[in-house]
Amino acid sequence: MNSEIGGQIIGFGFSRKGDRTFQAFDPVKRELIPDEFTDATPDELDAAVTRAAEAYKTYGYLPGKKRAMFLYAIADAVDALGDQLTSIAGRETGLPAARLTGERGRTVNQLRLFARLLEEGSWVNARIDRADPGKQLPDLRQMQVPLGPVGVFGASNFPLAFSVAGGDTASALAAGCPVVFKAHPAHPHTSFLVGNAIREAARSSDMPDGVFSLLHGKANEVGMGLVNHPLITAIGFTGSFNGGKALFDAANRREKPIPVFAEMGSVNPVFLLPGALKERSEAIAAGLVSSVTMGTGQFCTNPGLFVTVNRPEADLFASALKEQLRNVQGGAMLTEGIHSNYVRSIRRLTGEFGLAELSGNDAEKDGLACAQFLETDVKTVLANPSIAEEVFGPGSIHVRAGNPAELLELAERLEGQLTVTIHGTEDDLKQHRELLAVLREKAGRLIFNGFPTGVAVSHAMVHGGPFPATTFPSGTSVGTLAIYRFTRPVCYQDFPQSSLPDELKDENPLGIRRLENGEFTK
Amino acid sequence: MNSEIGGQIIGFGFSRKGDRTFQAFDPVKRELIPDEFTDATPDELDAAVTRAAEAYKTYGYLPGKKRAMFLYAIADAVDALGDQLTSIAGRETGLPAARLTGERGRTVNQLRLFARLLEEGSWVNARIDRADPGKQLPDLRQMQVPLGPVGVFGASNFPLAFSVAGGDTASALAAGCPVVFKAHPAHPHTSFLVGNAIREAARSSDMPDGVFSLLHGKANEVGMGLVNHPLITAIGFTGSFNGGKALFDAANRREKPIPVFAEMGSVNPVFLLPGALKERSEAIAAGLVSSVTMGTGQFCTNPGLFVTVNRPEADLFASALKEQLRNVQGGAMLTEGIHSNYVRSIRRLTGEFGLAELSGNDAEKDGLACAQFLETDVKTVLANPSIAEEVFGPGSIHVRAGNPAELLELAERLEGQLTVTIHGTEDDLKQHRELLAVLREKAGRLIFNGFPTGVAVSHAMVHGGPFPATTFPSGTSVGTLAIYRFTRPVCYQDFPQSSLPDELKDENPLGIRRLENGEFTK
Repeated sequence: MNSEIGGQIIGFGFSRKGDRTFQAFDPVKRELIPDEFTDATPDELDAAVTRAAEAYKTYGYLPGKKRAMFLYAIADAVDALGDQLTSIAGRETGLPAARLTGERGRTVNQLRLFARLLEEGSWVNARIDRADPGKQLPDLRQMQVPLGPVGVFGASNFPLAFSVAGGDTASALAAGCPVVFKAHPAHPHTSFLVGNAIREAARSSDMPDGVFSLLHGKANEVGMGLVNHPLITAIGFTGSFNGGKALFDAANRREKPIPVFAEMGSVNPVFLLPGALKERSEAIAAGLVSSVTMGTGQFCTNPGLFVTVNRPEADLFASALKEQLRNVQGGAMLTEGIHSNYVRSIRRLTGEFGLAELSGNDAEKDGLACAQFLETDVKTVLANPSIAEEVFGPGSIHVRAGNPAELLELAERLEGQLTVTIHGTEDDLKQHRELLAVLREKAGRLIFNGFPTGVAVSHAMVHGGPFPATTFPSGTSVGTLAIYRFTRPVCYQDFPQSSLPDELKDENPLGIRRLENGEFTK
Repeated sequence: MNSEIGGQIIGFGFSRKGDRTFQAFDPVKRELIPDEFTDATPDELDAAVTRAAEAYKTYGYLPGKKRAMFLYAIADAVDALGDQLTSIAGRETGLPAARLTGERGRTVNQLRLFARLLEEGSWVNARIDRADPGKQLPDLRQMQVPLGPVGVFGASNFPLAFSVAGGDTASALAAGCPVVFKAHPAHPHTSFLVGNAIREAARSSDMPDGVFSLLHGKANEVGMGLVNHPLITAIGFTGSFNGGKALFDAANRREKPIPVFAEMGSVNPVFLLPGALKERSEAIAAGLVSSVTMGTGQFCTNPGLFVTVNRPEADLFASALKEQLRNVQGGAMLTEGIHSNYVRSIRRLTGEFGLAELSGNDAEKDGLACAQFLETDVKTVLANPSIAEEVFGPGSIHVRAGNPAELLELAERLEGQLTVTIHGTEDDLKQHRELLAVLREKAGRLIFNGFPTGVAVSHAMVHGGPFPATTFPSGTSVGTLAIYRFTRPVCYQDFPQSSLPDELKDENPLGIRRLENGEFTK
């Protein structure tokens, strides 16, 4: 490893001034990886943000097509890292090569999706109300503009797709915001490789120095310093509730508060309605077990709770589930901390709350995390709401409702979620219209006859939801709508054509769709 | 006055249980108005919010066309209040009848604009990505849905357009959110009349009981109780920085934080560039004085600061300004508190900071507030940034820049603003491109050769801006974009046609514009 890798990327340059170092951990071999990484110093952090603010003066005003070229260049550069990237990411996370190759593909596809959005250009939502002198109305022209330099925090569980060149970075850069990225200390080498690819893409596509920087920070001070830097205008975060909430609170305590878009995970409840269980108990059991255990359960959208109504078909399903559980395997988790949290949380559920475990396994075996399927009833959950809090890992709780009213009450008492899933027949849905309405209030995405793991990157995806799933209910961190977290509308009143952005000029030189006097032009 | 007027409107009913009363003040006669109003009790507040949450279960799912009928009915009912409304509002605010008649027109036009938006229906931004089984991609359908019950606070300075049936209420009701309105204690009778008009409109258009409630509250506890009620999902506010910031902080401290959309005013700086001053010093001076003194300066967009570069044309302008100031009149302010704040703030500027006053008037005469035009230079403002904080009232500060670099430095040091104005020639703009870029970062609306007072209600208007102008840089409280403060995206995955909202069904029964597989269908 060359010496630059252990330090910060500050714009086009490198810096390693600090004396606090850390090492990543190989969760499969269960040993520290020798390479040392150095936390950013306050000076390095300030240099990165100051350079981002300087870069913003250029980058925030570039034509969308130029920013698109930058995103394409990043995608190509990340792609070009090839097996080196997936092998280092695999060592730092324990995730299998096939998964990481898929995640790399997802990451570059996401960058290219935003690049196409910029090339097309209509995303700025241009609105033009022409002057009406008779009514003394001025000429008003509105479009979305970037917020300014953005701080982004990488997640541990997607070392590529929700990390350095992930959705937050892609959408912030697409919006026109320079990014100062706080690398997750669980995969620092992976982070450096991707950060360096962005750095090289920035140079090769003539972006301003400072459009992207990457800081290491095992200590909380680095992240808090980023949130508190006066030139940072917004924060993107994916991770734990405690982490996200701490950043949100700090950002609100600033002299000038800034928005924090924190995606903090979710229990992702699954409602199994009678008709569906009657028709396909085994398929649902198989799908559920696969969704819970996939990737050792380390997804924000992992289904942590599933509900049935006590009827003969629910018992059928319970038997099918037990059958499926005979084959579940243990797996290495991303970090030692995540592993021990998982085991502790499960033991609290079985110990303190007396939940039964269905698979007969322990939560941990040979240092691996094992799938745990617990069982309880609605009354117990309602009396102990903390049972319905997220347990990050391959665990899930079967909650039995005595009757449909209990099912509905549980739904009403749910906190905000990224996803809620219903398995049912069309007839089930008709008979549970009220449930569907309750669930719309609880989540960013409602899934029918599927499983929540798997978050497609597209225009219609919502990866967000009411608090505590996120700190901002109106955003999404996946899909093209994510760009609007990092923009705000600006209105130009009575400006001459020569000083208007191209998006707002009369002749519409970019050929974008606009709302003109209330009518869409394209 | 009938006895109901002094109490709360809770859904379709009335309630007056409290024992804390207050009276409004006639700022022209300078005397209390006899009618007594009673603060809402905690029980009344809870009843209003609980009923709003119950109403939401219906209202949040109504077709847009039905909500449109409700908004039209409100507009008609407010219109029908006629001279009774403007005369009572005039007594409570001291604002002249012509202004209030205009403001009533603006208020009902705003309601009708949102009604038309709902009738057309495309505002929900429907996005459909059809399933692609080959790529294992599900069917994803996204639209904007309401947040839930919203608390709205009325402003003192627009007793109609930013009060009970104003922009926040109109956009929240349009979005599908029931509103619990905290009336401003400076115009409680006006508030009741409008609130009762909404109540009657809700009944006549078959809206659910609880879709709108109105609470009186002179004590802070009522407003704080609203922000802290667990069933409230968002807050709209127009008023002072201290008021808005207190609500913002309280909302963020909740166990479940909620967004606060507070519009807290602004200094609205005006940059007078040399070419413009050379061409039309007198017209600019006349326009500026009129904009500063109109309505006794009680607009969020009142220009509180104007900047020139020391050159011969700036002296020409200064002379023209002095000439204009000979005719300025004093006026009654909305409340005694606003009046005394204005006088105190001006005296602090002339006393503590030694700013010269150009008109030769005192800030107050015969109990009226008089226009004050102060003068200072950039160095003094940069050394004492509090000089550039908003003084609510008919005051403005002429800041002289020694050279263009000082002008630019002042611009860079500005805090977030609702508006920034430039007077210039096209040539001025070309020579000040950097200034224009700096100013885009500072405000929600940039005005060329006009004045910031006057906020058109349209699609392209932005009445918002970076903190401290607002607590949410990406919103606007005027114009159709305001609706999105009260919505969030929801995605339906693989749902059968029969259970999808009409907006997302294949056959597009509402005929709305949608983004389908990345292409707009209309």
